Amino acid sequence: MHFVAALDRVPGLRGILCLFEGVCSGAADGYARAIGRPASTLLHLGPGLGNSLANFHNARKARSAVVNIVGEHATPHLQVDAPLTSDINTFARTVSSFVRTTASPADVGPAASETVAAAWGPPGAVATLIVPADHSWTEGGVPGAKALLTPPAPVSDATLRRVAELVRLAGATILLGGTTVNPRALAAAHRISAHTGAKVALARNAGRFSLGRGRFQPVTVPYFPEGALPLFADTRNLILVESEVPVSFFAYPGIPSYMVPDSCTTTILARRQDDGTGALEALAELIGAGPAILVDPARPEVVDDDVPLTLEALGRTAAALLPENSLVSDECVSSAVPIQTALRTAAPHEEMPVTGGSIGQGLPVALGAAVACPDRKVVAFDADGSAMYTLQSLWTMVRENLDVTVIILANRRYRILDIEMRRTGANGFGSLAEAMIDISRPELDFVKLAAGMGMESGRATTAREFAKLTREAFGRRGPFLIEAVI
Amino acid sequence: MHFVAALDRVPGLRGILCLFEGVCSGAADGYARAIGRPASTLLHLGPGLGNSLANFHNARKARSAVVNIVGEHATPHLQVDAPLTSDINTFARTVSSFVRTTASPADVGPAASETVAAAWGPPGAVATLIVPADHSWTEGGVPGAKALLTPPAPVSDATLRRVAELVRLAGATILLGGTTVNPRALAAAHRISAHTGAKVALARNAGRFSLGRGRFQPVTVPYFPEGALPLFADTRNLILVESEVPVSFFAYPGIPSYMVPDSCTTTILARRQDDGTGALEALAELIGAGPAILVDPARPEVVDDDVPLTLEALGRTAAALLPENSLVSDECVSSAVPIQTALRTAAPHEEMPVTGGSIGQGLPVALGAAVACPDRKVVAFDADGSAMYTLQSLWTMVRENLDVTVIILANRRYRILDIEMRRTGANGFGSLAEAMIDISRPELDFVKLAAGMGMESGRATTAREFAKLTREAFGRRGPFLIEAVI
Repeated sequence: MHFVAALDRVPGLRGILCLFEGVCSGAADGYARAIGRPASTLLHLGPGLGNSLANFHNARKARSAVVNIVGEHATPHLQVDAPLTSDINTFARTVSSFVRTTASPADVGPAASETVAAAWGPPGAVATLIVPADHSWTEGGVPGAKALLTPPAPVSDATLRRVAELVRLAGATILLGGTTVNPRALAAAHRISAHTGAKVALARNAGRFSLGRGRFQPVTVPYFPEGALPLFADTRNLILVESEVPVSFFAYPGIPSYMVPDSCTTTILARRQDDGTGALEALAELIGAGPAILVDPARPEVVDDDVPLTLEALGRTAAALLPENSLVSDECVSSAVPIQTALRTAAPHEEMPVTGGSIGQGLPVALGAAVACPDRKVVAFDADGSAMYTLQSLWTMVRENLDVTVIILANRRYRILDIEMRRTGANGFGSLAEAMIDISRPELDFVKLAAGMGMESGRATTAREFAKLTREAFGRRGPFLIEAVI
Repeated sequence: MHFVAALDRVPGLRGILCLFEGVCSGAADGYARAIGRPASTLLHLGPGLGNSLANFHNARKARSAVVNIVGEHATPHLQVDAPLTSDINTFARTVSSFVRTTASPADVGPAASETVAAAWGPPGAVATLIVPADHSWTEGGVPGAKALLTPPAPVSDATLRRVAELVRLAGATILLGGTTVNPRALAAAHRISAHTGAKVALARNAGRFSLGRGRFQPVTVPYFPEGALPLFADTRNLILVESEVPVSFFAYPGIPSYMVPDSCTTTILARRQDDGTGALEALAELIGAGPAILVDPARPEVVDDDVPLTLEALGRTAAALLPENSLVSDECVSSAVPIQTALRTAAPHEEMPVTGGSIGQGLPVALGAAVACPDRKVVAFDADGSAMYTLQSLWTMVRENLDVTVIILANRRYRILDIEMRRTGANGFGSLAEAMIDISRPELDFVKLAAGMGMESGRATTAREFAKLTREAFGRRGPFLIEAVI
């Protein structure tokens, strides 16, 4: 309460109201991914923190910096087991790299500084500061020192020299993750690859991918093992750049968890806390790599036919119209491949994937990214089932007049569960199980849902309708929702 | 996945799909409160469990029995830190009295039996069973033994005799909680009170209150200390029946946490695991209490005037029309007093309050209660801010054609925060803080939101419109939403 009241007294704080804590946590993740600096969330005791955890799980996996402030009962009130009393520390530990409870009013400032530094990293982390109410309402607080922020560590010459040897050998694969799916690092990786023949791949769990025409676009490690295993089948030396040995998303009977051969050796060029981008540039210099020639994909064209909308048409149209420098929040789930494939032909942009597999992040991440970058178009591709997790995001997008286009991929089905059920050997399921993955009954009407939160919208069932609505949404500023029935 | 596939093979299981895990957990709570037996939730790893925690917090405080099944990665996959990997045990411990991870396929059956028994209690509890995927897909499972369910423990004669002495003394207050706000226990408490002059009060955190005409209706402990402190000011002997010493919901500067005087002595008639109802009946017999005379409140009348809708008119009309034996889910928050007061004049019914102070339970609890009791009308009174937490509940109400009337109390404001800000001394807040409790911009349109999930609805801005819509909703079977603009 005192923190909220302070908004009017302390300049430079912008309060953004969300109707559900899962929106706050996802928005803070999106803010950090877009701009590389932490936002702060303000949550209410254990249950408020509980509602935020699923999206903080994704933030944790993305190494997004978040300063998470949680109000706690006044210290003397904790002994009485009031209704809202719970073990906030345990709630917090599930997703936080750093948890700190203030010890006194005078400790609030120093504790806040420590929390900001812990969130910053590198790598970024969810850092949680728990503040009992009496530490807010009692006199004696003092501002903390400016948080001491550490830059990423440079990679040693010895490491560079060792990797310079390995990268020349047959079967070298460089896996870019963390902060290194950015234009500078991609250009360096391209030079190294062109000079040595090393393969380059992108880890799935980087928080932000710089993609599109004019950029080196290595393959992203596929979601399913049958795609990922062939990619690494000939890998003898895996070189990790702010990434880890790639693993399967889920385990399946008879399929290995690690996607690289057992015989493969792994070498770390840059750890998560290191300057992977600087390391790649230094490595390119060290091996004497010259400029590499980029072959761009053909420009996509809008599909303007009066035919039922398909994912392929949707992807091509969106790619053709996507404004340069857009931020794309990607929660396509089972619809991902055609859209991601098409977006590689689009103008240069950045994509933010679901890093931790917890659905419900797509709209909040778009929200946070739009707050961080008001001069960039933000586009959220969101599956219908996922969008329903944190649909309250639309309200804050309208309230803050954020420049977000939301594209709902409405297949009326938890199709990913359908796929996974068959893969885990639970196939041959009957009508009762089938009903558990069918969300067509009753039909969700996202145009009405959006209108209920004051957002303009339209529905597309044909390629032409989708092209028309997308032109309209991308051609204006402000929030707009397209329900794409596929 | 295998659990879902089993729906078609194992008779007697009813699968109910919810679009968000917080709806599942709240619905399981409502089921348990309505029928006194556990439902089971099926959740997906740490993040799915995370989304359920806020409503499980309320279930924990209500002592509702829930069998919470959480899928985990296959055991060999846990070492590889896949995207969805998290510490599920820590997530679970925040709300569960019992957490068990299966040790092998053969252990799934016995572990399930233990979990059911732990959920059952008494008192009821959230009991969590974590099942790694390979324990589902590997042969070797065996059904567990039927869970050994314990009845509540009878209260000893020595305790009854001791309380029989105390209850005759001046300044005795009997506090009913747990399962004892039921017609039998209330009738016994009434006889005891009439015979001895002892005061009777209802603990706020009982899961289910039997109220309405024809029943003894003691005062419920008020939410704010300035109401609760006078209630207990003359209490010298507090007698607890499945309840605890009453405490303030929040702490406030200069106000005590305990609502009884320091000089008061506390005696436990029945613990949470005991048969409090049997103890009250035995106590009434022991002290020779005769029948007590019930004075019912006047019957309420529908307010049919063409005037702007007020909470008082809303309460009176709802009370006048409420079908006998209804189940009321009460998440009125700052609108509670006029509605709860009016409902005491209604036909006999049962109310289910927000036991743990975590908002977003009102609609899910109504959903679960309607599943448990298909022959009873369920009415959810829900504040607009709270309703937005788990609005996905409407979809499942429509899908299962549940007999629920949802009444949204739309004051376009987080009014409880407004009140609490002033109480904690953070008053005098300015326009930026004010904006954080104002949800009028953009305006939420619950009629459109309901339509987006296939639910019929109407909006009332006058007393007459509310009366018309309430007659319509209560007079039919099936889901209907009323947006009451107050």
